[in-house]
Amino acid sequence: MKELYGSIEAGGTKFVLAVGNEDLEIIERHSIPTQSPTDTMPAVIDFFKKFPVQSIGLGCFGPIDLNKNSSTYGYITNTPKLDWHMYNIVGVLEKELAVPVAFTTDVNAACYGEFVAGAAQNLDSCVYYTIGTGVGAGAINKGTFIEGFSHPEIGHMTVNKAKGDFYEGNCPFHESCLEGFCAGPSIEKRTGKKGEELKEENPVWEMISFYLAQAIYNTTLFLSPKKIILGGGVMRQAHLLDQVKDKFQKMMNHYVEYPNIDEYLVLPSLGENSGTIGSLALAKEEKIRIHK
Amino acid sequence: MKELYGSIEAGGTKFVLAVGNEDLEIIERHSIPTQSPTDTMPAVIDFFKKFPVQSIGLGCFGPIDLNKNSSTYGYITNTPKLDWHMYNIVGVLEKELAVPVAFTTDVNAACYGEFVAGAAQNLDSCVYYTIGTGVGAGAINKGTFIEGFSHPEIGHMTVNKAKGDFYEGNCPFHESCLEGFCAGPSIEKRTGKKGEELKEENPVWEMISFYLAQAIYNTTLFLSPKKIILGGGVMRQAHLLDQVKDKFQKMMNHYVEYPNIDEYLVLPSLGENSGTIGSLALAKEEKIRIHK
Repeated sequence: MKELYGSIEAGGTKFVLAVGNEDLEIIERHSIPTQSPTDTMPAVIDFFKKFPVQSIGLGCFGPIDLNKNSSTYGYITNTPKLDWHMYNIVGVLEKELAVPVAFTTDVNAACYGEFVAGAAQNLDSCVYYTIGTGVGAGAINKGTFIEGFSHPEIGHMTVNKAKGDFYEGNCPFHESCLEGFCAGPSIEKRTGKKGEELKEENPVWEMISFYLAQAIYNTTLFLSPKKIILGGGVMRQAHLLDQVKDKFQKMMNHYVEYPNIDEYLVLPSLGENSGTIGSLALAKEEKIRIHK
Repeated sequence: MKELYGSIEAGGTKFVLAVGNEDLEIIERHSIPTQSPTDTMPAVIDFFKKFPVQSIGLGCFGPIDLNKNSSTYGYITNTPKLDWHMYNIVGVLEKELAVPVAFTTDVNAACYGEFVAGAAQNLDSCVYYTIGTGVGAGAINKGTFIEGFSHPEIGHMTVNKAKGDFYEGNCPFHESCLEGFCAGPSIEKRTGKKGEELKEENPVWEMISFYLAQAIYNTTLFLSPKKIILGGGVMRQAHLLDQVKDKFQKMMNHYVEYPNIDEYLVLPSLGENSGTIGSLALAKEEKIRIHK
């Protein structure tokens, strides 16, 4: 029998739990709402107690402490979700389930999924964005996550205001940040409707695509990744990707010769599974690393 | 006798040539103006023919082709300096001097100098900016250069206009880019004077520090480097670093817990020698790599 690995995508609204095998095939999946740790974590532990997993990959909402030399390694740190503030999520899982946990951000896990088995397979660099309730990104350079004193927080980069956009932004921290201007809630606040209810002609898409084009532009200049993958609910608007490509190309104005635009800027190959497959891959590597 | 290595800092206005030993001590240095390749390159070759160098580290103005699988690896590519457009600088040096050449951008070389022997010694990540005639940056993540389909071009990131700044920017490619708003020429065009002739109270410094603060803010969010080093002529304004620190901290608004600001954001430890020492270190590593 093939060995089993666990995956947890710990998001702000739900936890997606999964079990997969060493070929990264998903065998079982279960989703639970994100409530407080005392509600959510017992359900997580119960789920994994049913499967003899070798290790677990955990892609977690942030900010989180990834520094293995830190006394709070494995904690969710400075989150506005007060129930989870300074919560030792890795410690609890390792104690209750007695398996090693590979820990990274939710967006790094999704980035890794696309890197090992999706749109960036066979490349050595890529960036994965999620544009949904919030905006975040994970990045890989020469086969390794971008990570310094902490993980990136690319979703909060500063951007120029779109012409005709009088919305003040939705970020409690920053006046002019990407997330504040193009995450899902900003669309709803501008139009009174959810993105999926809006027509292609709605002028809000011109704004959203302008902000995303700036993000792709800056990402290209900072990281020159071989592939940029745009995931998350907002990207389900079929027309949006082309609008972003168009504005990005005009903004770059041939200054940098990036790869062919239709290869360079893409939707996730793994659809909704990028994070799960990435976490399973990280779990598998963690198990291999520990047994070396 | 200690082994000798060569360093070339090929800049837009001058080439700085140096010879150093395996301890990265500079033994001889020579500077020549950047004219056309037919004027400049013979002088470069004559200089190095006098020393039995094992290899040469070349930090070059860009854009350059760093892809070893490319037919134009080692070329200066799409530069506005037409004499150097598609010039095979690595090929010419290797042919004429018969030594291996380690090739990177001018800012990567300076970044590497600070990384191996300067402000970021003993860290595994850093970013080095030069703010002078142009703006550029080199970046190291987990001990390796940030490099994907090409090298970064961080100096052209998009920024928000400073209040009261009516200058249209100095970048021929981009409407609102960092280099266009805070490189040396932009200071001179706004004020009619060179930066070094301006008083600390001149309002232009409020603008320059606002643009640089945005650069540091975005750099922190993209790369979370353990150290950011600000070099180049514009940073010789003694008051400027503190202005940048102040604006950066306000802009970040405690969203990310970066290292202590006085450790995090610094001037180069190696002064004017960052690029030379970095190129010597790269030359030494190239020689070791080839002899493995």
